[in-house]
Amino acid sequence: MAHLTILIHCKDQKGIIASVTNFILENEGNTTYIDQHVDAVANVFFMRLECVFEQADFNTAKFKTAFKEKLATPFEMQWQLYPATQKLKMAIFVSKYDHCLYDILGRYNAGELNVDIPFIISNHNDLAHIAANFDIPFYHIPVTKDTKAAAEQEQLKLLKAHQVDFIVLARYMQIVTPTVINEFPYRIINIHHSFLPAFVGAKPYHAAFARGVKIIGTTSHYVTEELDAGPIIEQDTIRVTHSHTIPDLIAKGRDLEKIVLSRAIKLHAQHKCFVYSNKTIIFT
Amino acid sequence: MAHLTILIHCKDQKGIIASVTNFILENEGNTTYIDQHVDAVANVFFMRLECVFEQADFNTAKFKTAFKEKLATPFEMQWQLYPATQKLKMAIFVSKYDHCLYDILGRYNAGELNVDIPFIISNHNDLAHIAANFDIPFYHIPVTKDTKAAAEQEQLKLLKAHQVDFIVLARYMQIVTPTVINEFPYRIINIHHSFLPAFVGAKPYHAAFARGVKIIGTTSHYVTEELDAGPIIEQDTIRVTHSHTIPDLIAKGRDLEKIVLSRAIKLHAQHKCFVYSNKTIIFT
Amino acid sequence: MAHLTILIHCKDQKGIIASVTNFILENEGNTTYIDQHVDAVANVFFMRLECVFEQADFNTAKFKTAFKEKLATPFEMQWQLYPATQKLKMAIFVSKYDHCLYDILGRYNAGELNVDIPFIISNHNDLAHIAANFDIPFYHIPVTKDTKAAAEQEQLKLLKAHQVDFIVLARYMQIVTPTVINEFPYRIINIHHSFLPAFVGAKPYHAAFARGVKIIGTTSHYVTEELDAGPIIEQDTIRVTHSHTIPDLIAKGRDLEKIVLSRAIKLHAQHKCFVYSNKTIIFT
Amino acid sequence: MAHLTILIHCKDQKGIIASVTNFILENEGNTTYIDQHVDAVANVFFMRLECVFEQADFNTAKFKTAFKEKLATPFEMQWQLYPATQKLKMAIFVSKYDHCLYDILGRYNAGELNVDIPFIISNHNDLAHIAANFDIPFYHIPVTKDTKAAAEQEQLKLLKAHQVDFIVLARYMQIVTPTVINEFPYRIINIHHSFLPAFVGAKPYHAAFARGVKIIGTTSHYVTEELDAGPIIEQDTIRVTHSHTIPDLIAKGRDLEKIVLSRAIKLHAQHKCFVYSNKTIIFT
Repeated sequence: MAHLTILIHCKDQKGIIASVTNFILENEGNTTYIDQHVDAVANVFFMRLECVFEQADFNTAKFKTAFKEKLATPFEMQWQLYPATQKLKMAIFVSKYDHCLYDILGRYNAGELNVDIPFIISNHNDLAHIAANFDIPFYHIPVTKDTKAAAEQEQLKLLKAHQVDFIVLARYMQIVTPTVINEFPYRIINIHHSFLPAFVGAKPYHAAFARGVKIIGTTSHYVTEELDAGPIIEQDTIRVTHSHTIPDLIAKGRDLEKIVLSRAIKLHAQHKCFVYSNKTIIFT
Repeated sequence: MAHLTILIHCKDQKGIIASVTNFILENEGNTTYIDQHVDAVANVFFMRLECVFEQADFNTAKFKTAFKEKLATPFEMQWQLYPATQKLKMAIFVSKYDHCLYDILGRYNAGELNVDIPFIISNHNDLAHIAANFDIPFYHIPVTKDTKAAAEQEQLKLLKAHQVDFIVLARYMQIVTPTVINEFPYRIINIHHSFLPAFVGAKPYHAAFARGVKIIGTTSHYVTEELDAGPIIEQDTIRVTHSHTIPDLIAKGRDLEKIVLSRAIKLHAQHKCFVYSNKTIIFT
Repeated sequence: MAHLTILIHCKDQKGIIASVTNFILENEGNTTYIDQHVDAVANVFFMRLECVFEQADFNTAKFKTAFKEKLATPFEMQWQLYPATQKLKMAIFVSKYDHCLYDILGRYNAGELNVDIPFIISNHNDLAHIAANFDIPFYHIPVTKDTKAAAEQEQLKLLKAHQVDFIVLARYMQIVTPTVINEFPYRIINIHHSFLPAFVGAKPYHAAFARGVKIIGTTSHYVTEELDAGPIIEQDTIRVTHSHTIPDLIAKGRDLEKIVLSRAIKLHAQHKCFVYSNKTIIFT
Repeated sequence: MAHLTILIHCKDQKGIIASVTNFILENEGNTTYIDQHVDAVANVFFMRLECVFEQADFNTAKFKTAFKEKLATPFEMQWQLYPATQKLKMAIFVSKYDHCLYDILGRYNAGELNVDIPFIISNHNDLAHIAANFDIPFYHIPVTKDTKAAAEQEQLKLLKAHQVDFIVLARYMQIVTPTVINEFPYRIINIHHSFLPAFVGAKPYHAAFARGVKIIGTTSHYVTEELDAGPIIEQDTIRVTHSHTIPDLIAKGRDLEKIVLSRAIKLHAQHKCFVYSNKTIIFT
C-alpha cells in the first residue's frame, strides 16, 4: 500500500488530467485529491495530485518508471513524486529572537507539522536551552565577517550529514550566501518582517513607522540571491495606529511572524507550494 | 463548441475522477478545471468540473445522454450540467434599505456578476428610482399580514413568468414563507446582519450591542423554513468597540452586508456553492 | 448653545489638558470628549476636544478671542476651532469608474457622511447620470495635455465659488498639479489602489500580480506634490491567490477602494485626521 | 516622583475632566494621557488617566486622601489608583494544552507583559517541564468531582499567600466555582474557543463544524457564575472552509486562542479594561 503526492507541470495541453488519473486507475490506484492551475499567459499547466494504492505489493519504483514512460515523457512533464509516509527533514536556523522558535517547536510537539527536525543551528548560544527543553540537537556556529565562509561550510556539512530537505530561517538575522542557497534552491524559507515588497532590507518596522502606515505586515518567502525578492509563500497584516511606537510595532509584528512562518512551513512540508517564475502556486 | 460546468456527487468510490475526465477526453473535450471534496464521515464524493469542447458540431444534449448512461447511472451520481453561456436569472427582493441594492446593481453594471436581472420586487416604493436609474423593471407588491398570501402568489407569478433561477433578498425585511421557499429550494439567498448562529432573528445589532461583543459579523445563507438556520454561504466580520452606538454598528454592518451578499451571489451564479446536509461546499 | 470641536498642537508641556478643560469650564462649557497624543521624539502635544456650551447667548467669536489670549498665545499653540453645526463642503472628482462614486453618494444619502456636496467634476461625461440620480450638480471639464492648465483654472473657479473645504479624488485618474494642491494643502484625499508604499504609481494591480503577493491593499492619503507619498489616512488589505488574474485583483480591489475612501472621508469630515510631519494622527 | 493610573466612573456631569486634570496640576503633576467614555443610556462617565509627578517628595497616600476629599466625594465617584511601578501578580491555571502557556511565558520573557507570575497551577502534571524551563513554580493540584472543593481551597490558599491580583485560565478545562470567582470578581480571565455568544459550552469547534460556519472565533472574557456569559474583553476570528476537519479547526483555533488571550492579559495588566453592566470598556 502507498499514499503518493505527485506534482506536475508542463505545457498546457488537452487530456492531461484524464491521462494521469486514468493511469493511476489502471495501476489499481485511486485519485483522492487533485488541484490544478493554468498560467494562461505562459501557457503552463500545474497539478498536485494525491493517490492511494491499496494493494499490499505496490511497487513505487516500478510505478515511477511507468509514469515516466507513459506520461512524463510524452507530455514533456517536469514532475516530482513523494510518498506521504516520508516526512521532510527541516533544519532551523535561529539567532537570538525566540518567538518563532517557540512557536515552531510548540506546533511540532502538538503534531501540527509533518516534519522531522534533525537540529537547530544558531550563531549565538542564547536559545540552546529551548532546544534542550524540546530535546532537539543544537549547534552553535558563530558567524563573523571573517568566519562566515567557514561557518557556512560547517552548516553545509551538518545539512548534508542529516540529509536535510529544507531550511527555515526563524529570524536568523544573517544574510545567507549563494554558497548555501545554491544547495537548497527554493528550499530555504525566510520570514521577513514587512509586507513585501514594501520595506525591503533591514529595520522594516522603523521604515514603516517613518512612513506612517496604518497596517503592518509580514512575509514568508523562499530565499534567493536578491535580498527579500524571492517567491512569496504567505503574508499577513495587522492594523496599527499613530500611537504605536517602534517597540509596539515590533511586538505586534512578532505575532504575525510566528503565524506566517508556520503557515509557510506547513505548505512546504505538504508539497503544496510550487515555485514558478519567481512566484508561488499554493495548492489547496 | 461548448464550455460546460458539471457538478457531481455520489458515494465515494474508486475511479470517479479518472472515469469522468476520461469520458470528456473520449468526447474530444478537455477538462480545464476540477475541484473535489470528500465528506469522510458521510462517505460522499463531490466534484465541480469545467470542460471545453472545441468541435463546431458539439451536441450538448447527446453528451448529456451519454454522460448519464456511461457515468451517472453506473456510479449512481446526482449531477447537474450548466453551459457557461447560460446566465442565471436573478430576481432581487428589497424593502427600504438601498445599500445592498446599489452595491449589487453597481457590480452588475461593472460586469462583475454573471447573471441577468429580470426585475426587482419590493413591498415599498422607495427604491423604484434606483431600479429606473439602472433600467431594471420594478414591481411594487405591498405586503401586510392580510395580503401576504396574495402577495406571494403575485411574486410567484412574476418569478415563473420570467423563469427566474434564484432570488436574492437584499435586506427584504419580510419573512418568506414555504409557499415561495418550496418553489426555490436552496435558491433564495438572504443576508442576515449577524455572525450566525449568534443573534438569530430580529434586531441582531441591538443584541450584539447588549452582549458587548468586540466584533460584529454578517452571514449570507440559503433560506430554509427554519429562520436564519439555512446553509451558510459566506460570512465576514469587523471589529467594533464599546464606543460604538447601535447606529454605529448598523453603519459598520452595512459595509459587511454589501460585500458578503455579493460574494454569495457570485458563488451561486458560478455554480460554486453546493448544499449538502444543511452546509455548503464552496468550490474554488 | 454651541457644540465645538477644537484641535490643538504645541510643544509638549505641563498643564495643557488642565488649562484647556478648565478654560472651557470657566466659560460654562463642558468637555464631552478628549483625545490626545504626544509625539515623544519631536516633543509635540496634539489634542482633539469636543465641548458643549448650553447657554443660549454663547458667543463663539468672543470665545475664540479669549481662547487665543488665555491659551493659544501663552502655550504657543497652533489651533483650529469648528462648530459642529458647520458641515464641510466636499467636492468630488471622478473619471470613468463609478464604484467609489456610488458608494460615497449612497452613504451621503443614508446620512453617514457629515458633509455637503456642492458638485461633482469629471473629465468625462460617463457618470453624469449618477450625479443626476442623486440630484448633485455635475461639471464636465475635459482634460488633455494641452488644456490641463486651463482645466485646473476652471476647477479652481468652481471650488472657490462654492467655498469648497476639501476635495475627494474618487478614482479621478489624473495627476493633480501644485496649482490645485497648493490651494488645498492636506485637503485633497486620494485613493490609491495599492498597499503603499508598495506599488507606487500607475497600474499597481499589474505590479502586485507580477510580484506574486498573497495580499493586496488600498491606501487613502492626502495628495502632496510627490506622487503617492502624502500622509496616509487609512489602509486596508484583502487576501488573493495565484489563481486570481489581474481583472480579479481589480474587482477585489474595488471593494477595498470604496470602503477605505469612505472611511478617510468620514475622518476628515469630523476633523479626526491631523497631519504632522507627513504622517497622520487619527483621533478616536 | 510617581507615575499614576487613575480609573474613575460616576454619573455624567459637567466639569469632571477639568476638575480632575486641574487637581493634578495643582498638585504639581501633569496629565500625560486621558481617555474617557460616556454611556449615554445609563448616563455614566468613565475615565482612565495617567499622570506624572516629578517632585522627589511626592506622597501618593496624601494625594489619595486629597483626591477623595476634593473630587471623589463631591462627584460621587467610584475610583481606583495604581502606581505604574506596581506590577500585578498573575497566576496561571493550565490543564494539558500547552500552546497558551508557551505563548504567555514567551511574551513574559520578552518583556511584553507587565506582570509578575508567582506560580502556575495545574490539575495535571504534564506541563511541569515548561514551568521549569521558564523558572516558574508549578503546583500540581489534581481535581476530581469529589476533591474539587478541597482543591479550590488549596488554590485559594496559594492565591492569597502570594497576594495574586488576577488569574488567567490558559485552557484550564475545569469549571471554576463561585468559591473562587467571588474572591476574584472580574479578575479571572478565560479564553473560550468560540466567537461568543455563538457556541457556548463544551466542544465549540465540533458545534462550529456541525453548523458549517465559514469563520471561527475565540473570545477572552471575565469569568462569572453564568458559563461563558461574562464580560467580553477581546475576540478575534479566522476563515475556515468546508474542507477543514474538526482537528483542522482546533489547530487553527489555537493560533487565535494564544493571541486573543495575550491581548486580554495586557489590557487587564495595564488597567485598560473596565467592567460595567456585564460589558467592558477598553481604554486606548
